[in-house]
Amino acid sequence: MKLAEIPTPALVVDLAAMDRNIKRMADFFAGGSCRVRPHFKAHKTPAIAKRQLAAGSCSGLTCATVGEAEVVVDEGLTDDVLIANQVVGPGKAVRVAKLAKSCDMKVAVDSEFGLNDLAQAARAAGVDIGVLVDVNVGLPRCGIAPGASALELAKLIDSTDGVTLRGMMGYEGHVVGIEDRAEREPRATKAMGRLLESVKMVREAGLPCEIVSAGGTGTYDITGGMEGVTEIQAGSYALMDTAYAKLDIPFEKAFSVLGTVLSRPRPDQCAADSGHKATTQDHGNPDVKGIDGASVMFLSDEHATIALPPESTIAVGDPIELWPSHIDPTINLHDVMYAVEDDEVVEVWPISARGYLEQRRR
Amino acid sequence: MKLAEIPTPALVVDLAAMDRNIKRMADFFAGGSCRVRPHFKAHKTPAIAKRQLAAGSCSGLTCATVGEAEVVVDEGLTDDVLIANQVVGPGKAVRVAKLAKSCDMKVAVDSEFGLNDLAQAARAAGVDIGVLVDVNVGLPRCGIAPGASALELAKLIDSTDGVTLRGMMGYEGHVVGIEDRAEREPRATKAMGRLLESVKMVREAGLPCEIVSAGGTGTYDITGGMEGVTEIQAGSYALMDTAYAKLDIPFEKAFSVLGTVLSRPRPDQCAADSGHKATTQDHGNPDVKGIDGASVMFLSDEHATIALPPESTIAVGDPIELWPSHIDPTINLHDVMYAVEDDEVVEVWPISARGYLEQRRR
Repeated sequence: MKLAEIPTPALVVDLAAMDRNIKRMADFFAGGSCRVRPHFKAHKTPAIAKRQLAAGSCSGLTCATVGEAEVVVDEGLTDDVLIANQVVGPGKAVRVAKLAKSCDMKVAVDSEFGLNDLAQAARAAGVDIGVLVDVNVGLPRCGIAPGASALELAKLIDSTDGVTLRGMMGYEGHVVGIEDRAEREPRATKAMGRLLESVKMVREAGLPCEIVSAGGTGTYDITGGMEGVTEIQAGSYALMDTAYAKLDIPFEKAFSVLGTVLSRPRPDQCAADSGHKATTQDHGNPDVKGIDGASVMFLSDEHATIALPPESTIAVGDPIELWPSHIDPTINLHDVMYAVEDDEVVEVWPISARGYLEQRRR
Repeated sequence: MKLAEIPTPALVVDLAAMDRNIKRMADFFAGGSCRVRPHFKAHKTPAIAKRQLAAGSCSGLTCATVGEAEVVVDEGLTDDVLIANQVVGPGKAVRVAKLAKSCDMKVAVDSEFGLNDLAQAARAAGVDIGVLVDVNVGLPRCGIAPGASALELAKLIDSTDGVTLRGMMGYEGHVVGIEDRAEREPRATKAMGRLLESVKMVREAGLPCEIVSAGGTGTYDITGGMEGVTEIQAGSYALMDTAYAKLDIPFEKAFSVLGTVLSRPRPDQCAADSGHKATTQDHGNPDVKGIDGASVMFLSDEHATIALPPESTIAVGDPIELWPSHIDPTINLHDVMYAVEDDEVVEVWPISARGYLEQRRR
């Protein structure tokens, strides 16, 4: 199958570019003490996770949801899994306890409620679940306050049956996307200081803290270069998007949304079938690939309205590609992605962890 | 199952409110010459389409994609289907021709390319496909220019084997969301003037124009009240969202995204598990349901960070509901929705046309 024969809209991976990205990340950490734990949430695609793990320098995989972890375990991708998120809500802890029977399962915890829910499920299932204290390092979202509060929670975890304190994590999500390295670097370092100070307090209290997990694609070489950080939770580096492409990081855009031109009502405009049900706009409009001077005017559910240079020869029926602004939610809209080499589709990969697995397993 | 037992994030329909919305729309058109053709793209859910059709005053269903039309036909929802969109791209026309064997299939066309593609597939399949001329009434997207160009395309359709000219359509998408009726009404009337003038020219040329299709939830009573318009393509009215709720239309918000509080790091803030992979932000952040003074600060992939009144007693593990800003793409993120009466789940509905069907049927 040729690229131009793919039913649109559809996700297309430039296989060679993706493999170069994966190799660059693996090479960066090769031989060092810090590992990369690729974030499965970015692509939810077992075929990509396999390539990331095969490239080396990995500690395991990171997941955002229990459903993602279930796919990772079901597909046998790795036996070292971290859900870098609070596991709270109907049925969640029980599902994690079930997974802990067949892998080294670790979960982020930032409250006594989350801890007790998890520990209860672990004891009921007769398993042990690893726990990382989730420390707030500046992103106003989840995470317990660094310092005394984090230490207190670590002590509580250490004294709770059914769970084992394995380490600490903190996600500097408020700085990973800052374009200017001169601003990103000191802010990432400051955020990590909060995590590492808490790690020090926990160790001085005689508690175990084997894993120190942090970082993302935008800070992999900053956070990943700090003494004491044992692994980086990076996801976007394999495929990249226009938001991360603005940063000075050595990863290529390897991923696009293929559409078809539906209409060209005027010389300076066309409409393609790749709307925001095919490529999200939470990080802004996508860019147009390969047509100088073209730009997305707006997205509707099933349309991208695109401003064109009037001299463009693109016509109704032609393929047109967009670079997404944010890969994670864009990939989550689709069921498969097409891996392409030289305009030839070489593999079609199921996005097995798309959506919320429990809704499909009913 | 109780509301609080649903695994989150999840879509919840207030069944009684939805049924009231559906009845209000059916009652508005009862006994008149204009019908409603509910837009299936809004919810992609057969169970809801059945209720819309059963309420009466309907001409059939509107679809945005071929995949949606395939679900409508496969589920036997109606035999009167309009794809209110250009059908262009690999395999699309052939799939429409196949559908035309078992329903009264109509498709929007705005170019010779689109017409020929469709007619060729129809002739190859030995079927006839109905065609509506898609007229640009002001939304800069698809549609042929009104007047002479539209008439010329109508003549071409009428003289092409494999297709039958059935009417004309125009979507005033640039005005359906205008909050102030004093501005919305004259602009909708002006847009429809462009369509109706083109209809007049086509009829005066002796061509058939049985269907005049237009409108949306925001203009159902304006466009739907104009002489000559035979049907309204409204979708959002059944469930509503915060964007349409700002308008003076008699439909209630009947739909929310249920989440669980994952973390409450500070008295004035919490994080829930309903991020933009569960509720989109293309029409802005969702609203918080049922907590006075609470508002969404920002959405991440799997988190909603919510500002709270410090005195709020909401705690980790509690359910929390958001009103989405745009139902269409929000529903498209999920595989099922939960229909609820008095906090009791009474039915679970598959969102059968979610995503792009051809990706799941490979």
